[in-house]
Amino acid sequence: MLNFDLHLPTKLVFGKGTQRQIGALLAPHAKKILLHYGGGSIKKSGLYEEVTASLCAAGIQFAELGGVAPNPRLTLVREGIALCKKENIELILAVGGGSTIDSAKAIAMGVFYEGDIWEVFEEDLRVEKALPVATVLTIPAAGSEMSNSCVITNEAKQLKYGNTNHCLRPLLSIVNPELFMTLPKNQIANGISDMMSHLFERYFTNTLHTDVTDELCEGLLRAIMKNAPKLIENPQNYDAWCEIGFAGSLAHNHLCGRGREEDWGCHGMEHELSAIYDVAHGAGLAVLTPNWMEYVYHVNVPMFLQFAQRVMAVNGGARDAEETVGEAIKRLRAFYKSLGLPATLRELGIGEEHLTEMAQKTTGYAFGEEYGRGHFLPMKWQDVLHIFKKALN
Amino acid sequence: MLNFDLHLPTKLVFGKGTQRQIGALLAPHAKKILLHYGGGSIKKSGLYEEVTASLCAAGIQFAELGGVAPNPRLTLVREGIALCKKENIELILAVGGGSTIDSAKAIAMGVFYEGDIWEVFEEDLRVEKALPVATVLTIPAAGSEMSNSCVITNEAKQLKYGNTNHCLRPLLSIVNPELFMTLPKNQIANGISDMMSHLFERYFTNTLHTDVTDELCEGLLRAIMKNAPKLIENPQNYDAWCEIGFAGSLAHNHLCGRGREEDWGCHGMEHELSAIYDVAHGAGLAVLTPNWMEYVYHVNVPMFLQFAQRVMAVNGGARDAEETVGEAIKRLRAFYKSLGLPATLRELGIGEEHLTEMAQKTTGYAFGEEYGRGHFLPMKWQDVLHIFKKALN
Repeated sequence: MLNFDLHLPTKLVFGKGTQRQIGALLAPHAKKILLHYGGGSIKKSGLYEEVTASLCAAGIQFAELGGVAPNPRLTLVREGIALCKKENIELILAVGGGSTIDSAKAIAMGVFYEGDIWEVFEEDLRVEKALPVATVLTIPAAGSEMSNSCVITNEAKQLKYGNTNHCLRPLLSIVNPELFMTLPKNQIANGISDMMSHLFERYFTNTLHTDVTDELCEGLLRAIMKNAPKLIENPQNYDAWCEIGFAGSLAHNHLCGRGREEDWGCHGMEHELSAIYDVAHGAGLAVLTPNWMEYVYHVNVPMFLQFAQRVMAVNGGARDAEETVGEAIKRLRAFYKSLGLPATLRELGIGEEHLTEMAQKTTGYAFGEEYGRGHFLPMKWQDVLHIFKKALN
Repeated sequence: MLNFDLHLPTKLVFGKGTQRQIGALLAPHAKKILLHYGGGSIKKSGLYEEVTASLCAAGIQFAELGGVAPNPRLTLVREGIALCKKENIELILAVGGGSTIDSAKAIAMGVFYEGDIWEVFEEDLRVEKALPVATVLTIPAAGSEMSNSCVITNEAKQLKYGNTNHCLRPLLSIVNPELFMTLPKNQIANGISDMMSHLFERYFTNTLHTDVTDELCEGLLRAIMKNAPKLIENPQNYDAWCEIGFAGSLAHNHLCGRGREEDWGCHGMEHELSAIYDVAHGAGLAVLTPNWMEYVYHVNVPMFLQFAQRVMAVNGGARDAEETVGEAIKRLRAFYKSLGLPATLRELGIGEEHLTEMAQKTTGYAFGEEYGRGHFLPMKWQDVLHIFKKALN
């Protein structure tokens, strides 16, 4: 096990009706906030009314900025920063999914950052200070409600970059699984793929002596794979949403990756797909992950054998390890398919045109400084291109 | 799943050499601290030197209070409170195991509490304010390094009471598994029994739809049971200590019990043993837990069947559930025995003399107001007495 720090100061408030506590919970922290949200579904669902009523009852003033799109955009972030400065905002409340929360985090950093906020993403800067962010989660997927990171798309440059800073951990997050019941099935499936990927990125490691975090990753993956089909069957299943909602927050709050080298190769590749094709992040991950697994498993067969046995319940042993691993990946593909997720880049509308360009961006080669992408197998652009081509059809 | 809050603000700093960071980590928080420790083993081991050198290098002044005993005593807590007030202490650094940390927490509350600190324990008061507590852990067991609770013994009244308040969560905790390598085997075993009990108290529940926390409890129990025998074999096994140290902190920081009713019957019974006989907490729990299991499993056989299959790896099914559960409890007894833990109250030096008195204290009957102790099966004093008698020989 590697040395590590674990610091998870976000307060999670979980369960039925909890969104109506938001005003009381924020009142000790801010008098004037920015209410940040997406395309307006929270107005149709009544959530906007509930949240604003709770804020008013607690005497909290708010400015508003809606319009966050999936793969949240730099332009709106800049607008939010200007608005926060003008209105002397003390806290940003993101009501939405990962995109809205990530947009809020970028704005929160930008209020104190003296240059243009894109520099923070492009140069991967460490930033000490941000406005506090609170969240009311409407889509369990990205895990941003407890994480210290955010991802922003520069639509002009067709670049999608993440940034990680301790000050980005939300102050508090409301997770009420009732709010997830109106999600369309493709969003449910994309979210589940995303949270599973957050676990896979941490799970597949060459670090030894990681029993505790192996168990955490495996347990959360099993809990997700048990409950996900119930939601595709019936999105009104509160109990299943509780498991998915809680697992989604734990999958990405850092707990599961402490003391072990993490990978993040699949996320790196998928960000390039999303940046050019604006595909759903979870859908891109569902396509890439099994192909990545097939390409890299030989690096550490025992790691994948453990995955096959413990997560995918393949009844195979060490003497036919490759067959066992193959069966596990086959089952994972079948699982994604059962959720309605795509299996090929073609299904995402992606052809051969940009594969080389995206591969060379993934590893930094396109920018003149190539590094190995991922840690389980540090990939060069040719490796990424191989995986992209394998994933094409 | 039940509604819940999860707020774990303690920063865990984990791994080799981390105790030498203590000064730098505390410097932003305090200029003058109380250094609180036990019987002086930290002076023999050199840890005292390392910690005080780190404090001095960071320009932190400190007063000292040693002498914490196992089952930490009210008398020393009162002394610590007076000392903190006199010296204008800003933070308490506990260097030791659960007893030292619990003593520090009680002192931290007492500095701001206007009456006598024992009232807080006797009347189970909620307290808002305490001095910040930091810890350098030397015995993984109690989980106090991340928990919001502490247990103090009133030696005059022969009472051992716990108290839980959010302000008791440590600011930060150093967990360096190297520091555990000099522990004697009986302390290792007691600590392992204690952390397993923290998981059992959360695991055995009648709440339904708890897949995520079931997996967390089961996974940590398996990781502990895999690594504990390695430490009895060789207390110098750093890798095994990492698993036990990390699991011990996660077992009691609340994560594993969120959204489910917890039990705490065995801890309640054990506290009465310790209060009168001053037995080691983990040893008492190892004796009581299997006897409690045999007495209560019929309340929810499927819960215990899952325990048997997933935690104890019993290859039995639902059609012979009672036999399967019986085999699981038998294996748990064998596991405790393999660590050198006692199986009977007699081995702890406890006879029949005080059994009824202890049973009646456990459920509040002795104080004129009986409640059901524990939640899996709310026990009356006759139930507790039955378990005590079963555990006697």
